[in-house]
Amino acid sequence: MTDRNAPIGVFDSGLGGLTVAREIMRQMPEERIVYFGDTARVPYGNKSRETVTRFSRQIVRFLQSQKVKAIVVACNTASAYALEDLESETDLPMMGVVIPGAVAAIEATQNGKIGVIGTQGTIGSGIYARYIKELKKTVEVVGKACPLFVPLVEEGLWEDPVTDEIAKRYLTELIDIGIDTLILGCTHYPLIRSTVGRIMGEEVTLVNPAYETARELKQMLEKKDLLNHEVRRLGDDRYHFFVSDEAEKFRGFANSIIKYGILSAKIINIEEY
Amino acid sequence: MTDRNAPIGVFDSGLGGLTVAREIMRQMPEERIVYFGDTARVPYGNKSRETVTRFSRQIVRFLQSQKVKAIVVACNTASAYALEDLESETDLPMMGVVIPGAVAAIEATQNGKIGVIGTQGTIGSGIYARYIKELKKTVEVVGKACPLFVPLVEEGLWEDPVTDEIAKRYLTELIDIGIDTLILGCTHYPLIRSTVGRIMGEEVTLVNPAYETARELKQMLEKKDLLNHEVRRLGDDRYHFFVSDEAEKFRGFANSIIKYGILSAKIINIEEY
Repeated sequence: MTDRNAPIGVFDSGLGGLTVAREIMRQMPEERIVYFGDTARVPYGNKSRETVTRFSRQIVRFLQSQKVKAIVVACNTASAYALEDLESETDLPMMGVVIPGAVAAIEATQNGKIGVIGTQGTIGSGIYARYIKELKKTVEVVGKACPLFVPLVEEGLWEDPVTDEIAKRYLTELIDIGIDTLILGCTHYPLIRSTVGRIMGEEVTLVNPAYETARELKQMLEKKDLLNHEVRRLGDDRYHFFVSDEAEKFRGFANSIIKYGILSAKIINIEEY
Repeated sequence: MTDRNAPIGVFDSGLGGLTVAREIMRQMPEERIVYFGDTARVPYGNKSRETVTRFSRQIVRFLQSQKVKAIVVACNTASAYALEDLESETDLPMMGVVIPGAVAAIEATQNGKIGVIGTQGTIGSGIYARYIKELKKTVEVVGKACPLFVPLVEEGLWEDPVTDEIAKRYLTELIDIGIDTLILGCTHYPLIRSTVGRIMGEEVTLVNPAYETARELKQMLEKKDLLNHEVRRLGDDRYHFFVSDEAEKFRGFANSIIKYGILSAKIINIEEY
């Protein structure tokens, strides 16, 4: 018997997954969350399938030790590379960010041309195109890796001429192709959403998989009778953050994303799991 | 009895240390090299002392298994954080990149004002300033972290208006202070040496610790009677490259830095050491 009061496990290579955690907090304020960010081995985006899967397995074992009721793979690269393996190996309900993003993009597109931006890993895997085509064959999907976006976001250059210039270089070919829908296929990208939106123009719909994932998660928990219906205030104790390195730096960045007050983040040695 | 024919072990968080390996190849063509790049956990520059030291210990154990005669810590962050611990734990002669760079900067400066650029880890540790002041108290040392340089170099933007713009932002305060010597305190930076040199101006001497380290290493091996004096051609077999991930990508980048032909790079699981 799984406890409806048990926390939801959310993990990412580092900080980006906090945009997913933030959406879960907004849409399901009654839920507890255990977040893990792999800050000792971040980033995942330019690493191989084997390595990302090995790292993800360790994290799932850690989250299981925390008695979570479900796991959200809040990292596009890990969703692309590891989710299928993890699902087949684990009994817990599990959800990545790719399928919810793909479904929302299909609903949004009018002209059948969808763009996806993400890390080298996510784009190279072709996973968004694969899921989208499985759901709707006639849609055209164009992927573009944007490897400098993550360091620019982590340097705080969310609104900056340099980020504008780099974004223009990455996005021009998507504009030329005439996409009408763009998936922000990396959890860092919602933080430069306004830069990307300005360059793409108002006619292009931006899809934020973080938002869609939280929505899907709520439905899944509901269906499995795992949603926490107790409306009592849970207090500061409901969110727990773990990292594999640099807890203080994580806390600083996290507090700039999440307004619920992250009291502390604990360091664990993830290689032991 | 150590074999003079044994290889020199060189390690880095990833690709940057290849600029050090390249200098060793140039200055000591008779030497064999075993290089390890920790591409599964790269970068080290924004990670903590504890984590960088733990990773470095695993790598030293791996290099010992390869029967190296000496170890070069070809990473400024690992030299800053881990070298002292590693030296006290290991019998092998060991050398980092920081001291050779510090010594060369002291020799170069005329006005006693030295700048250091590097990762957050290297600059935050204050290690260059500490070594320089130990050797010459009257020198003023100013450090500046340049966290975007590594991703820009790895994206291949060695000569690019964006790299120029970011470099100007980072370097302006060093120009204003009037330094006459600048240490390139990260092994990636020699690859954007001309950009940095153009912005700093001709009067500022750039110190490349990779070059200085190879020079120091040669003297150390000579003194310990470990230098390989056999002048016979060693062939392609003399350089061996190991990484913890993405061997193919490493090979591509490595071949753009080193002209000796990197035939292959092997993947190992460094967490097992």
